[in-house]
Formats: sequence, C-alpha cells, structure tokens
Amino acid sequence: MNLKEYLAARVQAVDAALERWVPAETVPPQTIHRAMRYSLFAGGKRIRPVLCIGAAEAVASAYSGIEDAACTLEMIHTYSLIHDDLPALDNDDLRRGRPTNHVVFGDAMAILAGDSLLTLAFEVLSKLPHANDAVKASLIKELATASGTVGGMIGGQVHDIEGERQTPTAALLESIHRAKTGALLRASVRMGAIYAGASADQLAALSSYGEHTGLAFQIVDDILDVEQSSETLGKTAGKDQAQQKITFPAVYGLDQSKRMAAQERQAAHDALTPFGDSAAPLREIADFIVNRNA
Amino acid sequence: MNLKEYLAARVQAVDAALERWVPAETVPPQTIHRAMRYSLFAGGKRIRPVLCIGAAEAVASAYSGIEDAACTLEMIHTYSLIHDDLPALDNDDLRRGRPTNHVVFGDAMAILAGDSLLTLAFEVLSKLPHANDAVKASLIKELATASGTVGGMIGGQVHDIEGERQTPTAALLESIHRAKTGALLRASVRMGAIYAGASADQLAALSSYGEHTGLAFQIVDDILDVEQSSETLGKTAGKDQAQQKITFPAVYGLDQSKRMAAQERQAAHDALTPFGDSAAPLREIADFIVNRNA
Repeated sequence: MNLKEYLAARVQAVDAALERWVPAETVPPQTIHRAMRYSLFAGGKRIRPVLCIGAAEAVASAYSGIEDAACTLEMIHTYSLIHDDLPALDNDDLRRGRPTNHVVFGDAMAILAGDSLLTLAFEVLSKLPHANDAVKASLIKELATASGTVGGMIGGQVHDIEGERQTPTAALLESIHRAKTGALLRASVRMGAIYAGASADQLAALSSYGEHTGLAFQIVDDILDVEQSSETLGKTAGKDQAQQKITFPAVYGLDQSKRMAAQERQAAHDALTPFGDSAAPLREIADFIVNRNA
Repeated sequence: MNLKEYLAARVQAVDAALERWVPAETVPPQTIHRAMRYSLFAGGKRIRPVLCIGAAEAVASAYSGIEDAACTLEMIHTYSLIHDDLPALDNDDLRRGRPTNHVVFGDAMAILAGDSLLTLAFEVLSKLPHANDAVKASLIKELATASGTVGGMIGGQVHDIEGERQTPTAALLESIHRAKTGALLRASVRMGAIYAGASADQLAALSSYGEHTGLAFQIVDDILDVEQSSETLGKTAGKDQAQQKITFPAVYGLDQSKRMAAQERQAAHDALTPFGDSAAPLREIADFIVNRNA
C-alpha cells in the first residue's frame, strides 16, 4: 500500500465531513463559526480520525459514514488545543505554524470556540446518519469518558499542570500521558471498531494497538520537542524543558526514549496479528507516528 | 400542592444524582473534582432539572431514573456560569453569594472545570441506567443542540458579547435571549417529556410551555438586575446597565417588562391545558419563576 495516498484519501473524507457538520462562516453568529473553523482547518494531520477509520477497515468491509464519527475526534482534539494554548494555561501563541486561536479572536471567543467544538462533537454523534442508536450511545460513552477527568484527557491536563511542581518519576510520567494523549488515541481506534461492529476479541486487540500507538506517539512528541526547531514543528519547540514538564527524555534520556518508542511500535504491530492484511493501514500508521519529524 | 415541599423533594433527588455521577473530591486529580463540585453544589435553585422532572410527571406516571437525566442540565448550566464569570468574559467575582470558581481555583482550573462538567453531562446521558438507546440518543441531541452555537446557549452568549456594541432593538433582544437562556430551559422541559415517552402532540405543547417560561424567566432576570441588591441576588446587581447589555427594561422600560412577564406566564399556563392535573407542578413553577425576588 501507498501510505501517502491512503492518508490523503482519508483526510479528504474527514475534512469533507467537518465541512458538512461545522456551520459555515456565513451562519450567525459568524464570529464563533470563524473561530471554530480557523483552528479546525489549520492543516492538522487528522491522526485520530485516520486511526478511527483504519480500525473500522481492520474489522469489516462495510462502515458507511465512518467519517462522520471520525471527525468528532478532531473536534475534541482541536477544542483541547485551543483551550490548552490560552494564556491561563500554556500561553502559547504559535500552533501549526499560525497564531493561536486567542491571538486572532481574543480569549473570550477562544474559550467559547473550544466549548462549541466540544459540544458539537456530541451533537454530531447523536445525529449520525448511518449508525443505530446503540452504536451512537456507545460511541458517545467512549468519547466522553476518554475526554473526561478520570483517566481521560482533562485528567491528564490537570496532572500535567500539577506535575510541573512534582518530582519527575516514571510512574507519574506514564499516568499523565496515558490520560492526556493516550485515552483519546485509544478511543479513536475503539470508536472505529465499534462503528464497524467489532467482536469483544477484536475490540480488545484494537484497544491494545491503540494504547501502544498512543504511548509511542507521546514519546516521539516529547523527543521532537527536544530535537526539532519551532519552524519544523509549527509550534514552539523546547517548551517542555522551559516549563519543567515531565517528559520521556527528562526521565529516561533521549536514547532510551527512542528505544521505548520502537518497542511500543512493535507491541502495536503484535496486537494486530489476528487481523492479517485488513490491518495493513494501521501498521503503517504506527510506523508513520514513530518515524515522523513534526 | 405545596410548591416548597415539591421543590425540596425534587432538588434532593437531583443533588443525590449529582453526588453519584460527579467524582468525589478524593478521586485524583483531586483539584478538578473539587473545582467542579464547588460550583455545582453552591446552592443553585436547580430550575432546569426541576422543569425536566415536572415535564416527565405531566406526561406519564412512570419515569424511573429521571433525576439522572435531569442532573445533566445542571452540569451544563453550571459549566456555562463558570466560563461566563471568567475575566476574559464577564469578569465577575461573585456568584450565588460566594467567590466565583476562578477566584478560588485560578483561571486554568476554572476553564478545565467547565470543560469537565460539559463533557460529563454527555457521559452521564450515554450511561443512563433506566433509558433505552433511542432515548439516550434523543436526549443527547436535545442537550447538545440547545447548548450549541446555532440558536443555542453559546450562540446567545456570542450575540450577547457582540450586542454590547449594537443598538438595542426588540428583535435583537429576543434573538439573544431565545438562544442564551431560552434554548436550555426549553430543552429541560423537552428532555423530561422525551424521557417519559411523550407523544408528538405532548412534546409540542410542552415545548411551547418551555419557550414561554424561558422568556418569562429572562424578563424577570433582567428586572431583578435593576431592582434588587447584590446581596439579595447573590451576584453583582446592576451589571447589565454598567456593561450596556441589551435587556428587557432597557428596550421596553420596567412597567412594560413586568406586563410582558405576566403575559408569558399566562401563555405558559395555556400550553398546559391538555395535561390537566398532572401539570399542576409545571404551572406552579411558571408562577414561581415570575414571582421570585432573586
């Protein structure tokens, strides 16, 4: 398979879904829709929606409308970036190579744009045109739990903020990242599997894939923050160290961190064994996540 | 019926549901759960959950577990207050007679506490123990739409912020309030009706009740901001005029505003005619909303 073509086709489908579900800039109140779209269409890699679609493809051959479910993951991810970048939180003014949402629209509108994307994600899942009510409820449970305070994304952010004042241990590091980025990446894979009607065994195997891929993603993210320039990353590099964040390089050093990323990639591959060829895209995505340079 | 006893029993059931669904302050990360609970258990009147339960009672005699659905309305309402009070938005430091969330926990935690309550509302609806999947999906659609940008709560907030710079006209006033507070109050009633299995006719009648009650609520809110002290309201009085907000007294004057509130109350009563005695609580709640002094 050609990963570049594969990703381009999936990203196009996800972007088309976002285009359909997010109100146009001409719909009043216009400012909020402009702010939502500014960050949503800022050239994100759409890793979470692509993982969702890849998981559906691993499970079944029919998963019509999966891009509608997948695009809600990008709404949640984007809302978290907008709020994270606010002056009250990470105070970052560069994201994906452009000024952050609050720099362009002001803090008030950035807060409301994040709230709106979070709300819209659940509205879309409740209205999925090609899913039955049991699947809708199940997807909403997955997404809400993974985004929440107990083992989910917000919980990880709080741990992260509080971790700046704590001793960086391996246990603290893992619990932060399992929640902060891991939970949503795992949910991305699980939502695709559920959408496509996965069995309990298939869901367990894909959850394992999602966990290992998620950890690999975060380790590489931490490494890139040390090794790459702000220009390459499209966001401020070297921030973790400046803010004394707990990172894999800080706890394990760069070399050991790279070995750990490779191990997680291998464990992700192992979890896919039962799926054979239908999981080829998921294997390539795990490799892509580990080998990326931005 | 005795309204005071009626309300006390419903509020107790809703508070018990909130107590069950919101993680305890001892669950890590503790700070965020403390922040969520601080604003959630600050002595709110629980008007939205009570409207939800009252609507279910008007429709049917069996609606087991309605308090689980009803309490999500208080989560959404409370999240909106926490974010609204932030320095970047209304910059208010007094709410329900106590320092606002960000004054106690800081802006970062207040933003995340609001995000968490918003997320938890949908998690709870996806896990309702006594509702089938069709009802869950329908309730989530109602709540998300009423909270969103197009005719919903966030849309109203944006209109309100932008309205500070516009000429106060009757049309602008109505569109702001229909979205800002009206949509969630209407959804409160509709969610109770849907939970209890309302027919299309019943849902339409109760929607009309919700719209008129919601408008009455907002008119009275605007009047109280002019006539009452901060001490009585438990929040800063006279802010609307100071911030040049578009209000009913500003557009119509106090006397005409009071007449309008009475008319909306009457229209709310009229909508309940088909329900007879089972809607007695909803009638009393409409009266209570119009006659309150805080």
